[in-house]
Amino acid sequence: SPGDRMATAANRVIVLIIVVNLSAVVLETVPHYARAYGRLFLAVELVTVLMFATEYLLRLWVADLHGPFRRIGPVRARLRFMLQPSAIVDLLAFAPTILGFVLDIWDLNVLAVFRLLRFLKLSRYSPGMGSLVQAVTSERRALTASAVVMAGLIVSAASLMHAIEGEVQPDRFGSIPLAMYWAVTTLSTVGYGDVVPVTGAGKALAGVVMLFGFCMFALPVGIIATAFAREIHQRDFVVTWG
Amino acid sequence: SPGDRMATAANRVIVLIIVVNLSAVVLETVPHYARAYGRLFLAVELVTVLMFATEYLLRLWVADLHGPFRRIGPVRARLRFMLQPSAIVDLLAFAPTILGFVLDIWDLNVLAVFRLLRFLKLSRYSPGMGSLVQAVTSERRALTASAVVMAGLIVSAASLMHAIEGEVQPDRFGSIPLAMYWAVTTLSTVGYGDVVPVTGAGKALAGVVMLFGFCMFALPVGIIATAFAREIHQRDFVVTWG
Amino acid sequence: SPGDRMATAANRVIVLIIVVNLSAVVLETVPHYARAYGRLFLAVELVTVLMFATEYLLRLWVADLHGPFRRIGPVRARLRFMLQPSAIVDLLAFAPTILGFVLDIWDLNVLAVFRLLRFLKLSRYSPGMGSLVQAVTSERRALTASAVVMAGLIVSAASLMHAIEGEVQPDRFGSIPLAMYWAVTTLSTVGYGDVVPVTGAGKALAGVVMLFGFCMFALPVGIIATAFAREIHQRDFVVTWG
Amino acid sequence: SPGDRMATAANRVIVLIIVVNLSAVVLETVPHYARAYGRLFLAVELVTVLMFATEYLLRLWVADLHGPFRRIGPVRARLRFMLQPSAIVDLLAFAPTILGFVLDIWDLNVLAVFRLLRFLKLSRYSPGMGSLVQAVTSERRALTASAVVMAGLIVSAASLMHAIEGEVQPDRFGSIPLAMYWAVTTLSTVGYGDVVPVTGAGKALAGVVMLFGFCMFALPVGIIATAFAREIHQRDFVVTWG
Repeated sequence: SPGDRMATAANRVIVLIIVVNLSAVVLETVPHYARAYGRLFLAVELVTVLMFATEYLLRLWVADLHGPFRRIGPVRARLRFMLQPSAIVDLLAFAPTILGFVLDIWDLNVLAVFRLLRFLKLSRYSPGMGSLVQAVTSERRALTASAVVMAGLIVSAASLMHAIEGEVQPDRFGSIPLAMYWAVTTLSTVGYGDVVPVTGAGKALAGVVMLFGFCMFALPVGIIATAFAREIHQRDFVVTWG
Repeated sequence: SPGDRMATAANRVIVLIIVVNLSAVVLETVPHYARAYGRLFLAVELVTVLMFATEYLLRLWVADLHGPFRRIGPVRARLRFMLQPSAIVDLLAFAPTILGFVLDIWDLNVLAVFRLLRFLKLSRYSPGMGSLVQAVTSERRALTASAVVMAGLIVSAASLMHAIEGEVQPDRFGSIPLAMYWAVTTLSTVGYGDVVPVTGAGKALAGVVMLFGFCMFALPVGIIATAFAREIHQRDFVVTWG
Repeated sequence: SPGDRMATAANRVIVLIIVVNLSAVVLETVPHYARAYGRLFLAVELVTVLMFATEYLLRLWVADLHGPFRRIGPVRARLRFMLQPSAIVDLLAFAPTILGFVLDIWDLNVLAVFRLLRFLKLSRYSPGMGSLVQAVTSERRALTASAVVMAGLIVSAASLMHAIEGEVQPDRFGSIPLAMYWAVTTLSTVGYGDVVPVTGAGKALAGVVMLFGFCMFALPVGIIATAFAREIHQRDFVVTWG
Repeated sequence: SPGDRMATAANRVIVLIIVVNLSAVVLETVPHYARAYGRLFLAVELVTVLMFATEYLLRLWVADLHGPFRRIGPVRARLRFMLQPSAIVDLLAFAPTILGFVLDIWDLNVLAVFRLLRFLKLSRYSPGMGSLVQAVTSERRALTASAVVMAGLIVSAASLMHAIEGEVQPDRFGSIPLAMYWAVTTLSTVGYGDVVPVTGAGKALAGVVMLFGFCMFALPVGIIATAFAREIHQRDFVVTWG
């Protein structure tokens, strides 16, 4: 129907605006671009904030026409609308900039963090994000179990390495929290190489940790991957047949 | 039938030529080999171009005898043939060398990129490539969702690290795009180690990013692996029973 | 029932105590914290030991009321109870500290290892740990097979690299055990970068080992991930329908 | 039956001998151990060779009593036995040492490679190895397809990086084969960090290669893991019900 097509077009415009704006936030941190295109970035931000504020106010305006809120009176309907997670995300997408402008606090570093919250707004338009949340929720028991196993591995590996190389490399393995950085780097197979064992016993332990961790870290990966694929396909099924 | 056997033999010859030629392109960039075997590489290139040009012209010649193009006249049939993706790949496999020779532009670096396009021609003879394209196409929705999650993770990790270590290591985390190189290196578990956090807060963030990213990056891997295995086996089924 | 609710609450308190205590063990190794909060850490330890000892003695007290041990007399029931793996884990959670206190041996490094054994006590309260043990047990044949393949890969890669670069980098590849550290680092894709080949032949071998090992190391990961997911879901099924 | 039990015991003895011997080969390359336990290593080697030679001659002796070889005469049966892959592996497990001793060529480095061939003999006693070979064989089409995709990715990534950084870091990206070492290190997510891009364009390419390669490299991993798990379980089924 024309209404559906217009809704789809409006959604695409919003997604486009968010992507453009997020790119501006990212590029604005490059000093060279900030100097050269500062006004452009400001214009992008102002247009974005204007559009998001308009969108929010329009949604708020029509909130009491919406299905579940129709029967509870115009004020309570709008309050209930404002407390929905999606409405809070929409509010956070423009309010900080306006607040910063009004209060004359224009610290780009603080604002950047708030402006990146627009990723949450973007995620509302991606069907996959819902599936991911669903997958994590339905597998929370298995993921908790994996987290306990992984935490145990990390702390055990860190403690043993602290015992072996704590005095050889005190700035790297001098405490268990320090050694945990090594343990996570190794168990996740990232392996920067900025913290490595130097003694024979340390290297032997590192080798065992690599082999052990490699297998244990497969647990959450397998669980999430399987659950996510299942959720995505269930949603496809609903979209096709619903 | 003898025709089938000849077609299979012809395909094998073409695959062999492409492999020999690609090896020549790769080895030619080694200065030592370029000096020692320059003439051999030139000969390989000329023979290859000659054979690919012949193959292309022969295919073009018989284009109007081919099933779907039989009824639309000899000129339109050949034009339609030339616009097929596979015919364009075949043309790109020899035309640049001839053009470079005719126009006397013989810049090896530019030509090398075009000559590596022969990988596309090679992929036409691999049944797996079709399955891979099919797998990616059928899972495009899940892959888009994964891409959004991954982009969000990369930008968030980069922004936080930029906020924490931007002033400590300005040449490494001085802007979000710079920090994104670190984020991708870490989230993909490659972990070169050329860009690493040095502060306690930075290391703590890096550890969380490793654990988080490890799981999130499992999403596209699981989806592609599953879909590819499915497509490959469906094709096997068709080949066996079709 | 109220009894069940009390049991659940008691379990949660024990889990909380273990987590607090393990955090104290980890943080106590940081010299700064050890000086600043030494008394707090000691208090945490003493309270923990007191509670674990009380819990153990209470369990021991009621051991002869418990199902399977009811008929074998009070002394034998308590002895049998003490020899259960779970009771040994409970004993190890507090006995070393008391012994160290009584014998006036208060070496924190040795005690820390014993105190981390409380992770085993923690794992008793995680349903996932049982599933993991079950998964490893049921797939022991496949895992043994993977271990043989992996050991073969590690020793072969190490031997070849020792043959190629043993004389070029004697401190890194001078013996097969030394080269095995490189092999494990590479095959597990950790890749610290502290031990890398420098000759052309060594780099070529490293490339082949990476590609080969990447595939071979998928074996245990796939097996464990699948079996663990299966066990977790079977347990869910039992919890829901049992 | 007693015969079966004796066969199992004999197999275990052989596996034990191979493991002891392989450990000796590995440890003998450590100069310190070679000096201290040289005689022990020699004794282990001599006993092993004696036992393997005896085993081989016994098997050869009874070759014509064995099922398929019973009807073809004693000489032809023994020749056919000797040409079996498993018999060749058995011969290679002791012949090189005897040959080296007889010809007075006792170069440990050359011998070590032959002695490590005993891993092949070990693999004959691991049911998993057969499953792995079966898995690779049954999925050879999918694996070939993956190999083409991976080869294309490696060469493309290397060529592009050679074009971008070939002149900036000529000793690292000066030719495509050199750049291929970087490409394999990156695509396999090992990421040593000894060869990294330094320009902005190079880093951007590296980021794309990491993301792309991460997904593509999932293909063979998924295929092998799935097929291996299937073969292992089919074999379990046969062992249980056959």
